[in-house]
Amino acid sequence: MSLPREFASDNTAPAHPAVLEAMAAANHGPAHAYGADAWTARAVAWFRDEFGGETEVFPVWNGTGANVTALRAMTRPYHAVLCTPYSHIQVDECGAPELLTGCKLVPLPTSDGRLTPALLRGAVKGIGNEHWVQPHVVSLTQTTEYGTRYTVDTLTQLSGVAHELGLLVHMDGARIANAAASLDVPLRAITRDVGVDILSFGATKNGAINAEAVVVFNPALVREMPFLRKQSTQLASKMRYQSAQFLALAEGDLWRANATHSNAMAARLAAGLREIPGVVITQPVEANAVFAILPPAVTTRLQETFHFYVWNEETGEVRLMASWATAPEDVDELLAAIRSEMAA
Amino acid sequence: MSLPREFASDNTAPAHPAVLEAMAAANHGPAHAYGADAWTARAVAWFRDEFGGETEVFPVWNGTGANVTALRAMTRPYHAVLCTPYSHIQVDECGAPELLTGCKLVPLPTSDGRLTPALLRGAVKGIGNEHWVQPHVVSLTQTTEYGTRYTVDTLTQLSGVAHELGLLVHMDGARIANAAASLDVPLRAITRDVGVDILSFGATKNGAINAEAVVVFNPALVREMPFLRKQSTQLASKMRYQSAQFLALAEGDLWRANATHSNAMAARLAAGLREIPGVVITQPVEANAVFAILPPAVTTRLQETFHFYVWNEETGEVRLMASWATAPEDVDELLAAIRSEMAA
Amino acid sequence: MSLPREFASDNTAPAHPAVLEAMAAANHGPAHAYGADAWTARAVAWFRDEFGGETEVFPVWNGTGANVTALRAMTRPYHAVLCTPYSHIQVDECGAPELLTGCKLVPLPTSDGRLTPALLRGAVKGIGNEHWVQPHVVSLTQTTEYGTRYTVDTLTQLSGVAHELGLLVHMDGARIANAAASLDVPLRAITRDVGVDILSFGATKNGAINAEAVVVFNPALVREMPFLRKQSTQLASKMRYQSAQFLALAEGDLWRANATHSNAMAARLAAGLREIPGVVITQPVEANAVFAILPPAVTTRLQETFHFYVWNEETGEVRLMASWATAPEDVDELLAAIRSEMAA
Amino acid sequence: MSLPREFASDNTAPAHPAVLEAMAAANHGPAHAYGADAWTARAVAWFRDEFGGETEVFPVWNGTGANVTALRAMTRPYHAVLCTPYSHIQVDECGAPELLTGCKLVPLPTSDGRLTPALLRGAVKGIGNEHWVQPHVVSLTQTTEYGTRYTVDTLTQLSGVAHELGLLVHMDGARIANAAASLDVPLRAITRDVGVDILSFGATKNGAINAEAVVVFNPALVREMPFLRKQSTQLASKMRYQSAQFLALAEGDLWRANATHSNAMAARLAAGLREIPGVVITQPVEANAVFAILPPAVTTRLQETFHFYVWNEETGEVRLMASWATAPEDVDELLAAIRSEMAA
Repeated sequence: MSLPREFASDNTAPAHPAVLEAMAAANHGPAHAYGADAWTARAVAWFRDEFGGETEVFPVWNGTGANVTALRAMTRPYHAVLCTPYSHIQVDECGAPELLTGCKLVPLPTSDGRLTPALLRGAVKGIGNEHWVQPHVVSLTQTTEYGTRYTVDTLTQLSGVAHELGLLVHMDGARIANAAASLDVPLRAITRDVGVDILSFGATKNGAINAEAVVVFNPALVREMPFLRKQSTQLASKMRYQSAQFLALAEGDLWRANATHSNAMAARLAAGLREIPGVVITQPVEANAVFAILPPAVTTRLQETFHFYVWNEETGEVRLMASWATAPEDVDELLAAIRSEMAA
Repeated sequence: MSLPREFASDNTAPAHPAVLEAMAAANHGPAHAYGADAWTARAVAWFRDEFGGETEVFPVWNGTGANVTALRAMTRPYHAVLCTPYSHIQVDECGAPELLTGCKLVPLPTSDGRLTPALLRGAVKGIGNEHWVQPHVVSLTQTTEYGTRYTVDTLTQLSGVAHELGLLVHMDGARIANAAASLDVPLRAITRDVGVDILSFGATKNGAINAEAVVVFNPALVREMPFLRKQSTQLASKMRYQSAQFLALAEGDLWRANATHSNAMAARLAAGLREIPGVVITQPVEANAVFAILPPAVTTRLQETFHFYVWNEETGEVRLMASWATAPEDVDELLAAIRSEMAA
Repeated sequence: MSLPREFASDNTAPAHPAVLEAMAAANHGPAHAYGADAWTARAVAWFRDEFGGETEVFPVWNGTGANVTALRAMTRPYHAVLCTPYSHIQVDECGAPELLTGCKLVPLPTSDGRLTPALLRGAVKGIGNEHWVQPHVVSLTQTTEYGTRYTVDTLTQLSGVAHELGLLVHMDGARIANAAASLDVPLRAITRDVGVDILSFGATKNGAINAEAVVVFNPALVREMPFLRKQSTQLASKMRYQSAQFLALAEGDLWRANATHSNAMAARLAAGLREIPGVVITQPVEANAVFAILPPAVTTRLQETFHFYVWNEETGEVRLMASWATAPEDVDELLAAIRSEMAA
Repeated sequence: MSLPREFASDNTAPAHPAVLEAMAAANHGPAHAYGADAWTARAVAWFRDEFGGETEVFPVWNGTGANVTALRAMTRPYHAVLCTPYSHIQVDECGAPELLTGCKLVPLPTSDGRLTPALLRGAVKGIGNEHWVQPHVVSLTQTTEYGTRYTVDTLTQLSGVAHELGLLVHMDGARIANAAASLDVPLRAITRDVGVDILSFGATKNGAINAEAVVVFNPALVREMPFLRKQSTQLASKMRYQSAQFLALAEGDLWRANATHSNAMAARLAAGLREIPGVVITQPVEANAVFAILPPAVTTRLQETFHFYVWNEETGEVRLMASWATAPEDVDELLAAIRSEMAA
């Protein structure tokens, strides 16, 4: 049984071969547990090269774990976390943020997954009113769940307003590599340098197996992190194998090559779709996702051969996601099929 | 820099080579995320072969994650979880069980890590008294944190008393393989067949990288498990790589060979220690751990060459742990060193 | 220093004199603590007369306590609670529901504080999807935070749809007396008889000091309640003084007289406002609250003499609340002042 | 049906008549809700007179609420709270502290309800070890659950050691009045002046109905308190009636007279018991409780006429508690009955 062509998510892709080679290379002899090993030391050094010397790095298992651990460091239970209606923390983590932080998540209205200074200003109110949860964190996703991204300028402005309003800035960077590649900037240019306090750094969707990290730029948020990570069930005993994954993606900036490729595949797909009458692309294509409206009957027939999600049952919007492993031929086959179904 | 000889824990060992081979073999092409892949289907089938057909299996990242997810399924926040003062859930999880379940953990006095029917009977009181937490779960560790194990008969009796008292039975099986090997029985003989309701199944200490599973025998506890796992941050997107680890250890009962070997290395160590005047073995050596009292000065000198933990600062008790990767020569070198230091 | 005329809330009113008389009458000799007293037995009997024989009653301190205890009985932490953007649980409890239940609250769009079957149907989705919180409870407020109320028919329909969708029905009845008075029906006609599973019964706003109760109609939700109330810090030791408050309001249906009066005062106010050019009443006046838009300058001047809240800074909407203690002269003075300011 | 003579607890007593008179006197006209009223301002002024000018006072409903709110201000969820095996927070709050703080409670061994510097020093370990909960608060009960009390010197020493160890000091003062009366010192001498960070101040057992307060001496712990109180469901809307209770007990130091009386009744009881052969008093009688061992058959017969609790089923220890409402004749009748039963 062969899988249908895969456009469902970047986590259905395999790991990059270099990742498994690095893990195998790390698999000799004993190593101190819980991160006191040589691979983790080297991975931390790489993060500090990328993000700046005082960066503190806490590898964790997955994106939900990274987000929850980060938010716990930034909140007390009477706080509110501002996000979007599409944020992974709001939609896709089965309430883990509420359970582990005690906080209320407050989604602000946006149509493209991006927050704005005006949205923040409108949401920070009732400060000091003991009856109301107190906005204390804004969580930005980069690239967003709608495949869009914040520019350096936008982030600088947003982060400035957030801090002015007394908010800490969390960035869900499950696809941070795609943003850096899309903008052609270093990782630190869209994180530490624009005022992000804590980054959930994602490697899994970039070609790793299960390697994410809570990356702390705000030094006041460092001290509690080891305890919060452990209590959030996110501390790996054999951490060397996570660190080896980071190192594999660091080597020769493989992470950037992977992200650039997946972005290019989405661009190729979008370019093709724009040529097909009747297909409406609904979001700016700025990273590795394409959102488009297809006739439901077309979607149904396509799903016999291709794996992808309907994002909005009412409008017929679908999500088409490219990964480091998506081949140009995969894209072209999908385009051909859509062209053919639309013509039928 | 080479590591000192390793007797600190079974999680400082590397993964068994077969584990990494299986992961590499799984690393081709796309696969459905979150467990809807062929490797997970095969891993589940193996668990059902081992534990019985209706067994439900939920792979998770690590032991803390398995324990917390299991306890969440078994409790409401006003419940109490009975355990020992040495239980991993009580000592080594930084309060994750309290945070995620809301429950109080109640350690019962035992000197060898094992609970008894009398301890359970003494602890189940105040049922119906709204001021008191209500005992609802007993958590047994097999093999225990003191390297001892429960026999089939003992478990049958304990579990019977527990159920009679209205308790559910959780087993922390981080070293369940060592118990099955030590007793020379199938896995199900010390879990499902003796009335365990949920097992935290450990593979990491047995030679995997990061593969544990919540294994549910009590059908009433199955329905909520997917949500509890996800909300506890324990759901892997690329689950095929965890499942491949289980499959590697399943192949030819590698898990049992690994456990048998580590048990044998501990037995070899204990046998040698018994010959050394002045060394006191403090616990029955029934699995892969040896607890012994050494003079503090001896311990200090040994730790220059060997990595192991002082378990009790006051008595000088140390823990010496063997793994699948411990070689007979490692044991013999340690024995020689102890012999020499004790003679000095 | 005399207070300005009070239209801010029904909790700025004093207690009805009969309430304090009943408390004083209960203040003789010892009484068993925690509800095992004669006054509580009589109060429970009154609740059963009103709501039906199998009703179970758990007095608590306040509305937040009642709501939280009720929701804890109805949920597991991966559940979602459907409510409105104006619900007390969503807005005014500083995140207590999230902290104590672990759940996500999901506000559904409504302009008058009332939910509809269509809103429920649209919100119950993703059932079985482990990534998403699972809608499990709908919380209705009766009368709503906008001073509107659900009719018997509407409640029957809503509750039917809720149960059909697998939802439990919670009713926040902080002003349940006003609803029963407004509709001229017995309390059970808008609670138990229409399928409410648990009611947060409010007496404080009706003339008590601090007496609310979790009233459980669904027998499956009774067993845990004593523990949940205690663990939620809501169990009174000297409960006789809460029960005496309920008994005072029960005597001769004082509760209904109080509610009828406060409703009448709001109606009188609304009738007067409708005569004043330039004043816009924004919500149906169906209980003891009037929502109206006044020019900001008028509001500012009025607030020198009258105490009331601006509800919406942008539109200039204010909330004017009557209580059992509001006198017709208070209303007339307010009307005269508004008339005069609007003319100026 | 008349109640048996009451020695079960100081919360089965009625409120002092002055308390109800003060509440009735406060029951005129509107008052701002949630503590912005004149009675609360006066109550706060009284607390500041008693405890010092910068004291911050947060009235709450009950002892569990006070303790939980206080502990939330002092902890993060990976902290441990050191207490005794008899502490109210450990035994009698149905796990509310664990649920609301996420913390582990660590009971330290003591036979008389008092902690010692040595116990604290032994318990503060593993600081910085991410696997272990971090001791951060010690909770002292004054007077203790065994009717004993800490002297000023003992508290000074304990608190000094606690702060030296990095612990914050919480005092559960459900019976703080009994301690001040027993030691004949001002309230501040055993709280603020000895280094207590937060006090749970109890008035209910001293003759109030339902008035406790979180009293904060450590200024760093003040800022969050309004939110923590509200989110913990402990904020009263009609707070004037709690404040009136404090004011009634403040007037002419009624609180001290009540405590002195209840202490004297316990002393009278203890003196009588010491004359009865076969009765063993098990704890120093330093406040309003007497713990004594009676033959089980005697206890059973006494309980037909007197209401009191068996504290230890195994030893036959009972608790006999006096309150402000206990009359000398009550004590003498109990003594006569015990004398008679012991002779039989």
